Amino acid sequence: MEREIYKYNEPFRLESGKITDSLEICYHHSGGYVPGQKVIWICHALTANSNPQEWWSGLVGPGKLFDTEKFYVICANMLGSCYGSSGPASPGANGKPQLLNFPQVTVRDTVAAHNLLREHLEIEKIDLIIGGSIGGFQALEWSIMYPDIVKNMVLIGCNAQVSPWGAAFNESQRMALKADPTFEQQESLNGGKAGLEAARSIALLSYRSYDGYSKSQSEDERDFLFADKACSYQRYQGEKLSVRFDAYSYYILTKCIDSHNVARGRGGLERALSAINAETLVIGIDNDNLFPIEEQIYLSRAIKGARFAIVHSLYGHDGFLLEWQQTERILRDNFQLFNNN
Amino acid sequence: MEREIYKYNEPFRLESGKITDSLEICYHHSGGYVPGQKVIWICHALTANSNPQEWWSGLVGPGKLFDTEKFYVICANMLGSCYGSSGPASPGANGKPQLLNFPQVTVRDTVAAHNLLREHLEIEKIDLIIGGSIGGFQALEWSIMYPDIVKNMVLIGCNAQVSPWGAAFNESQRMALKADPTFEQQESLNGGKAGLEAARSIALLSYRSYDGYSKSQSEDERDFLFADKACSYQRYQGEKLSVRFDAYSYYILTKCIDSHNVARGRGGLERALSAINAETLVIGIDNDNLFPIEEQIYLSRAIKGARFAIVHSLYGHDGFLLEWQQTERILRDNFQLFNNN
Repeated sequence: MEREIYKYNEPFRLESGKITDSLEICYHHSGGYVPGQKVIWICHALTANSNPQEWWSGLVGPGKLFDTEKFYVICANMLGSCYGSSGPASPGANGKPQLLNFPQVTVRDTVAAHNLLREHLEIEKIDLIIGGSIGGFQALEWSIMYPDIVKNMVLIGCNAQVSPWGAAFNESQRMALKADPTFEQQESLNGGKAGLEAARSIALLSYRSYDGYSKSQSEDERDFLFADKACSYQRYQGEKLSVRFDAYSYYILTKCIDSHNVARGRGGLERALSAINAETLVIGIDNDNLFPIEEQIYLSRAIKGARFAIVHSLYGHDGFLLEWQQTERILRDNFQLFNNN
Repeated sequence: MEREIYKYNEPFRLESGKITDSLEICYHHSGGYVPGQKVIWICHALTANSNPQEWWSGLVGPGKLFDTEKFYVICANMLGSCYGSSGPASPGANGKPQLLNFPQVTVRDTVAAHNLLREHLEIEKIDLIIGGSIGGFQALEWSIMYPDIVKNMVLIGCNAQVSPWGAAFNESQRMALKADPTFEQQESLNGGKAGLEAARSIALLSYRSYDGYSKSQSEDERDFLFADKACSYQRYQGEKLSVRFDAYSYYILTKCIDSHNVARGRGGLERALSAINAETLVIGIDNDNLFPIEEQIYLSRAIKGARFAIVHSLYGHDGFLLEWQQTERILRDNFQLFNNN
């Protein structure tokens, strides 16, 4: 897939009321859109970029389910991320990264911005939109904000509004970011790296499960004095993220999760969900501690005509990425799109 | 209960091989021990002190199940804690708190030290030992290290060795402590407070449950822009701990949890547990994400003659403190001790 930047050079009003002078939206796509081509719009999760061939390689690419040679496949980077769309790394008036001066964005801000990209590309319909986790939040908002654009929708491991449990995990991570004073000192984009490592370690616990850790992180020595295998895994995962991400984007994006509330300004959850016209499939992961399956059952009941399927995973929420083979099978079973053209 | 300090003025060898010149053990008890009096030994959890009348007030006190007027009730503070036993606050050679120079202790070190207190008090038998969480770790080690001393044992929400999941939670907390550079600067016992707040916020997530948060921390405003109720609860709980605890003790005690491994040096888990002579009751909490009930079922099967009971709680692991009424009923049903004298 090719990487492009779309520059929107007009003022853009955020839900918070703040107005940005312009916007940049980084996206990956499978080449020039041909009118009438079937469009697959992929929404990425928290720390992913706009290239799903990297993080969902089993599903996206030539000959894959999301066949980049057959469909027009597109994925746009969220506002606030560090992967090319406007975010804390974007220069402010002084030419330096805005860092904590970058305005807080919401899920709806990202979707509204991505819709500008859709208009720019002259895409009239999205044949299928799909997202897991915060990607699912975006897909859901797409289908509510633009009910006549989205024809089919797949939501994986997400919910209709951020849960208190999810918000508490996010806040713990932000507390870890702030415990590192280099975060608020804002000397560069490298501020807050130690806090970011801790934050990632916390997040991982919300994405995984007790059983998954028992399987992969049990101590090798029966007589161990201090357990360290799982501990070193946590440190490794923290370091791994801190190399490729920055604490400022991480802060913005966790707050962005906390903005997820389809009820806002729409007369409640059920009224908001009743606006959806897309043919919807909701997928839950049976061992997901962050988005328990009850949340996806709720969505599938509240969205008219929605179907519901379960992915089985030892890994918890991360199953939405890891169990892509089950997802593929479910999608083939549920959407004509993948079978006859 | 009265607070006392027992000073042991001889060298004490830790499992790590390090030797301390002396030890102080802070304990609360219900008054002078009278030989022949029934002894209830209570083991406290991670951030608790040695006064169970404060943190288990429903169960401990005059006329309560652990009747301080009838039984000799005792609880000793863990090594490494900030509540009076030897720990990071204890002065080193220069007269200042040792902080990170205090040697890392294990669960067995604490139990061995507490056994010195038992000998000092001339207590020959412990009629019942009880502990939840890391208190359960201590009770379990007591019954393995001193099988002829402990007559009855109650283990609540604990396991036979730290799980990879538990160790991962502990490591995330230590990463948050270290993200705050004042922790390693060690200027005073107040170092690392911001990290400690984040660490507590993380720990709380391991002690609670999705359902508990949904019940108590849901947003009040249907149309909320950013969820904050659960977030402010996390900050509040972090601040609350940081007022009464220090980051150095917190570090030592989370590592102490990671030392929990009854198998060590004993030919495996089952051989270690087979050494127990105490009449054992294992209590699991049905919604415990940190110590899932399978761990208590395992203990109840591996300890000879052990019984098993379940406490129902919406709150997860913290149910071991909060659901004391269920615990009381279970103990009355299971131990003659509480019924006929």
